[in-house]
Amino acid sequence: MSKRRIAIIGLGKIAQDQHLPVVGKSADFELVAVTSQRGLGHGGVPSFRTPAEMYAAVPGIEAVAICTPPEVRHAIAVEAIAAGKDVMLEKPPAATLTEIDDLKRRAAAAGRVLFATWHSQFNPAVDEARALLAAAGLKSLRIEWREDVRKWHPGQDWVFEPGGFGVFDPGINALSIFVRILPGTAFVESAELTYPANRQTPIAARLAFKSDIAGAPALSADFDWREQGDEKWHMMIETGDGRSARLFKGGAALSIDGKTVIEAPSEEYERIYVRFAELLAERRSEVESAPLTLVADAMMIGKRLTTDPFAW
Amino acid sequence: MSKRRIAIIGLGKIAQDQHLPVVGKSADFELVAVTSQRGLGHGGVPSFRTPAEMYAAVPGIEAVAICTPPEVRHAIAVEAIAAGKDVMLEKPPAATLTEIDDLKRRAAAAGRVLFATWHSQFNPAVDEARALLAAAGLKSLRIEWREDVRKWHPGQDWVFEPGGFGVFDPGINALSIFVRILPGTAFVESAELTYPANRQTPIAARLAFKSDIAGAPALSADFDWREQGDEKWHMMIETGDGRSARLFKGGAALSIDGKTVIEAPSEEYERIYVRFAELLAERRSEVESAPLTLVADAMMIGKRLTTDPFAW
Repeated sequence: MSKRRIAIIGLGKIAQDQHLPVVGKSADFELVAVTSQRGLGHGGVPSFRTPAEMYAAVPGIEAVAICTPPEVRHAIAVEAIAAGKDVMLEKPPAATLTEIDDLKRRAAAAGRVLFATWHSQFNPAVDEARALLAAAGLKSLRIEWREDVRKWHPGQDWVFEPGGFGVFDPGINALSIFVRILPGTAFVESAELTYPANRQTPIAARLAFKSDIAGAPALSADFDWREQGDEKWHMMIETGDGRSARLFKGGAALSIDGKTVIEAPSEEYERIYVRFAELLAERRSEVESAPLTLVADAMMIGKRLTTDPFAW
Repeated sequence: MSKRRIAIIGLGKIAQDQHLPVVGKSADFELVAVTSQRGLGHGGVPSFRTPAEMYAAVPGIEAVAICTPPEVRHAIAVEAIAAGKDVMLEKPPAATLTEIDDLKRRAAAAGRVLFATWHSQFNPAVDEARALLAAAGLKSLRIEWREDVRKWHPGQDWVFEPGGFGVFDPGINALSIFVRILPGTAFVESAELTYPANRQTPIAARLAFKSDIAGAPALSADFDWREQGDEKWHMMIETGDGRSARLFKGGAALSIDGKTVIEAPSEEYERIYVRFAELLAERRSEVESAPLTLVADAMMIGKRLTTDPFAW
């Protein structure tokens, strides 16, 4: 079968690090064009400043992967759907929930495939954790997602500006795993959001959840951008049958009772593109808004605390 | 046709002021029981402390209207759906968006009718404004929803506590009208949220919207709880064909070019129960989450400002 003709829109860091090399090796996709507002190119394929120019110039683009910042994803996806393209979205799929709902409606009405990716979900250890909790039940789960913002977003003031999500930018990766592995639905019950006195988004957040899971497990999340030293991206789990599990390395590894049972090299984006090919073959959309909905719920009902001003 | 047997859960102010008298005069519904945590009764029908006791004791309750505070609506609605009841919800339908999504799924899976009411939508002037904008187009719309919190929520500290919504408590009524009358979809583009230094929810909010409406109309909202004197609950509209319209009195009246074209006595709740009877006859749910989604979007991407401490 010939490969599907795909274009990548937005050639920032995530496109350079993941999308371009992964599509370059894909058995399912062939990169036929790119769009870069800044005029970047890649590997000799035609490059355009705007999607409209690209759609006009390059025939037969079947799908686009949108890797721009979240603020402009909705407008670009609307344009792509109107142009008859299937669409993959980086995470989070849009800047607001209203935008996601709108894209779902438009894709369904136009018969296009819409795939909102959450890269952290695409780890074998996440699948394994999901299977474990489905079989063994859940007594407690504590998310700890702590990193040094100076290391991971050096000098990027936008993360602290309105709409920048603050510590929820990494935290939403944890929430995307959380909603995937839970044997039920979790709801934000309360939240404490800590804002630097001179910034507009939280630098730390603590969430408590209720759920519809049997046994009413204790569920919580601790997100913090003030971690010194190594980052901690893990979840501490007590299963319903008394085992201690830990999903760690951002979802790439799982241990049970202290023994690592799975640790796979990260192939998140390889798996994302395989999934996209499956969805295209089935003509089926997959748009999970639950991770961003939990963030919005936390921001809506959370208690705000103020801490020391933040400087880089 | 015999009337449908309905129970009311939660006998607070909105039940006393609206639901009980309206059901009392309804041609479609017969009140057969009430639940009041505080042990209140009404008109000689059986009264219970919990829904579970009511369902066990009173046979043939077909539907319930849930008028409790929002924090407990989800749990009560889950219980009602599981007990095989159709459900009407006061506004906002739940405390978080995740809870609304969950109720939609549960009602659909169980084949129950779920009706999330937004009372301000049920005004003839709102229908008229919707028809006007559909026919004439829209150049600009400015929501002004300003009232004195000391008059409308005297001493009610909960409105300023986390989850209390602050000025969005009245503002969401305006947003429920806004999404109903617009000839398209609006998205929060930016927001300024003003918090008293000693409180957890905004006392004022200014929102700017973008939309997919032809001509890119200017859309904004100004919510303020610090209004002195009479409340202002209105929307200033310029139509695409150059007319000035004003939807005022909270959606009960509409003027065009200074002339009042419709001003109906408020029959919001009468119309809500007529609609519920229609939905039950059609076995169809109606759950609009757009107003609460706009609030969550504003809280998620809004800029926070601090103002003077608030005291009653």
